Amino acid sequence: MMDRKNKNTPAITPDPNALAIADVPARREFLRKSGLALGVGTAAALGLGGRAFADTGAATTTPASSNLPPNVPEWTRALGMPTASPYGAPSTYESDVKRNLYPGLKDTMSAYSTSPLQDLDGTITPNGLFYERHHAGVPQIDPAQHRLMIHGLTETSLILTVDELRQFPSVSRIHFMECSGNPSFLPPWGKTAAEVSGLVSCAEWTGVPLRTLLEEVGLKMEAKWIVAEGADGAAMTRSIPMEKCLDDVLVVYSQNGERLRPEQGYPLRLIVPGFEGNTHIKWLRRLHVTDAPGYTREETAKYTDLMEDGRARKFSFVMECKSIITAPSGSQQLTRHGKHEMRGIAWSGRGKITRVDVSVDGGSNWYPAKLQEPVLDKALTAFRAPFEWAGQELMIMSRAIDETGYVQPTLQQLIETRGSVSFYHNNSIQPWKISHDGEVTNGRA
Amino acid sequence: MMDRKNKNTPAITPDPNALAIADVPARREFLRKSGLALGVGTAAALGLGGRAFADTGAATTTPASSNLPPNVPEWTRALGMPTASPYGAPSTYESDVKRNLYPGLKDTMSAYSTSPLQDLDGTITPNGLFYERHHAGVPQIDPAQHRLMIHGLTETSLILTVDELRQFPSVSRIHFMECSGNPSFLPPWGKTAAEVSGLVSCAEWTGVPLRTLLEEVGLKMEAKWIVAEGADGAAMTRSIPMEKCLDDVLVVYSQNGERLRPEQGYPLRLIVPGFEGNTHIKWLRRLHVTDAPGYTREETAKYTDLMEDGRARKFSFVMECKSIITAPSGSQQLTRHGKHEMRGIAWSGRGKITRVDVSVDGGSNWYPAKLQEPVLDKALTAFRAPFEWAGQELMIMSRAIDETGYVQPTLQQLIETRGSVSFYHNNSIQPWKISHDGEVTNGRA
Repeated sequence: MMDRKNKNTPAITPDPNALAIADVPARREFLRKSGLALGVGTAAALGLGGRAFADTGAATTTPASSNLPPNVPEWTRALGMPTASPYGAPSTYESDVKRNLYPGLKDTMSAYSTSPLQDLDGTITPNGLFYERHHAGVPQIDPAQHRLMIHGLTETSLILTVDELRQFPSVSRIHFMECSGNPSFLPPWGKTAAEVSGLVSCAEWTGVPLRTLLEEVGLKMEAKWIVAEGADGAAMTRSIPMEKCLDDVLVVYSQNGERLRPEQGYPLRLIVPGFEGNTHIKWLRRLHVTDAPGYTREETAKYTDLMEDGRARKFSFVMECKSIITAPSGSQQLTRHGKHEMRGIAWSGRGKITRVDVSVDGGSNWYPAKLQEPVLDKALTAFRAPFEWAGQELMIMSRAIDETGYVQPTLQQLIETRGSVSFYHNNSIQPWKISHDGEVTNGRA
Repeated sequence: MMDRKNKNTPAITPDPNALAIADVPARREFLRKSGLALGVGTAAALGLGGRAFADTGAATTTPASSNLPPNVPEWTRALGMPTASPYGAPSTYESDVKRNLYPGLKDTMSAYSTSPLQDLDGTITPNGLFYERHHAGVPQIDPAQHRLMIHGLTETSLILTVDELRQFPSVSRIHFMECSGNPSFLPPWGKTAAEVSGLVSCAEWTGVPLRTLLEEVGLKMEAKWIVAEGADGAAMTRSIPMEKCLDDVLVVYSQNGERLRPEQGYPLRLIVPGFEGNTHIKWLRRLHVTDAPGYTREETAKYTDLMEDGRARKFSFVMECKSIITAPSGSQQLTRHGKHEMRGIAWSGRGKITRVDVSVDGGSNWYPAKLQEPVLDKALTAFRAPFEWAGQELMIMSRAIDETGYVQPTLQQLIETRGSVSFYHNNSIQPWKISHDGEVTNGRA
């Protein structure tokens, strides 16, 4: 704790014998020296597979800044803002890091907004930046008035309040969620990682296994599907096969520790790990146990995959293995030659990611990226790989492989299989082009 | 997507043959039936170790609500709020879930605010509710002006911008952070879990291993400590042993995916996994490599543990193994007899949690709780255990055990070792008392 008498006096640098920053020789000299000081042994210690990260120096070729900080910066000479902002917010310097409507959208009721993937690190998406997809806007639900009904081909029926649901045995699991139209097969292609693939996010969900609730009501022999209905103005309704419902589906009330945000289904939503986001019914009010799918509007007119012969793949639930490089990515800029780190995320609706390969030459040659532990089932997995840029044109890309052995395809491979009129479930490899001047653009454009 | 023509008409329940909620017989009857329908086999399937969760029914003894929802609730009959709130916020119905100043504090400059543990689920703390501890308030730092200097007993020195730091190879790790005074040894004891132990939180951190930066500058033979200094008005400064610096210390820029919040050290902070929170220097501006500790104010006058003989334990960095039951916890209320789920969090500064035991009789008998996977190194681990309450007085408590075999002690055991004048590092077992009428209070009071 700080002494009260010190409150309005300048802070004291605790170690008076330490070099003050202004006493140090010019920064350019340090950076040159630091580059020289690093050898091959260092790169090996970093686990870069023999590729030295900084043998030309991460910082050595960076233009030296001319505005060195003063010995004691202004914010060290004053008191800051008070403790205990009830909830807090990101720094005002980060105000550009936000959700945006999907490019070209104007409607805000049946609409989607993207996670700013190019500005995020790691695998957890903060709740404020988790992607949104609504069909009739975001209802503002009083949790005391909300009910979840479970009925149909069951031994008994159940109507639960939120508080009652919270009394069942609970679990917490980290899972990704992805919209099936992330992105569509059709141009125009997005410019940034958010525009290309920002309808994917990941969180720790807490709730009750659906299996527990189904054991509570008892299933009849004919029970094969559950038709789940939301309490929004679209009464969004999707059918989930019973096998999945008894496996890993959750009825959740919390996301990343706190109660669900309104736009994520407050007070209750279904989590259907690995299935397309549209099945994760928000504002969940009803689970109707049936012997057949509901064939609802959102699984007939929408969320099916039209093939070139006019037929459509339906109930194409699983989000197949996919990855995207988020840094460097479209609209970013490399500012120096030398070693860089390629960063991205990978995920699979069928389980764990086992490997991510990256390429800098448009897919002619691949080398493995490092996966961030822990690698979790149906969760975003961060990957990182070193690459070097000396001003030449590069086409960087990543391809993910999951525990079933499935390999993320190219767009061309997808089109060969599914035709070019399909809309959903484009999990193809995303190329980013780095130009001679370091500008990064969509390699598909 | 929703048809435009439907926008102002009531939503249609997709399956017209489904039972409307109002058609279902009274809810009380369902709940009675559901209780009867559940047998021992279910409890086994839930992994409750033979203890049936709901053989008397989670919901059977809950008073039936008299206000059943209408067939179609009001929010299903209207459009909601627009998509793409740039950042979003929790539901207004959750406005009580917030950080509060530590009980009794009035100063907001050298102050702490707590995570509302009793309202949180799982292990990730959302950034808006991550606990705070500041010694001179929260500086508002322009990241373009901020510098990190590394110097002292090094082969070379380095001054890095935030952008330059971000170009080093990065890692993401989930770690808890805890204030060493969480809580103090001294009464008055807090009423809620937040008041008792709310100076602990957990997040996914992304940044650069300090080892990487030290390899960049090169260490001299005499380098044994690093004195880390923050850019806040307190110039908060702590000394970290080199062995720890070369192990798992990180210089981070992101927390739960997004850049650090101002109150968490934006734009850079030190993460010293398992060490007391005070060492995780925020607004990090300087790493001074030395041959001895700095003996700064915050590791001499403060953050030492006074013993009864007048001497003090110093550099008592590690936060020892600890746990707390967050539900039910102080100021909560059990509203029905029957089976309940006890929920809490456990953590250890020495590694992974291997086991959490719980007791309902004040520690005479213990039984194991279920740990939520994945159990991570120096991270919060969620635990859950069933218990039954039939109106008798209970004293519930949890004790955690870590991979070193260390067992969380009682307060009495701690006092026998450290005396009663100690202030920091109280990791003792927290008892909660459940009264005949279901009121939960601090069992220590």
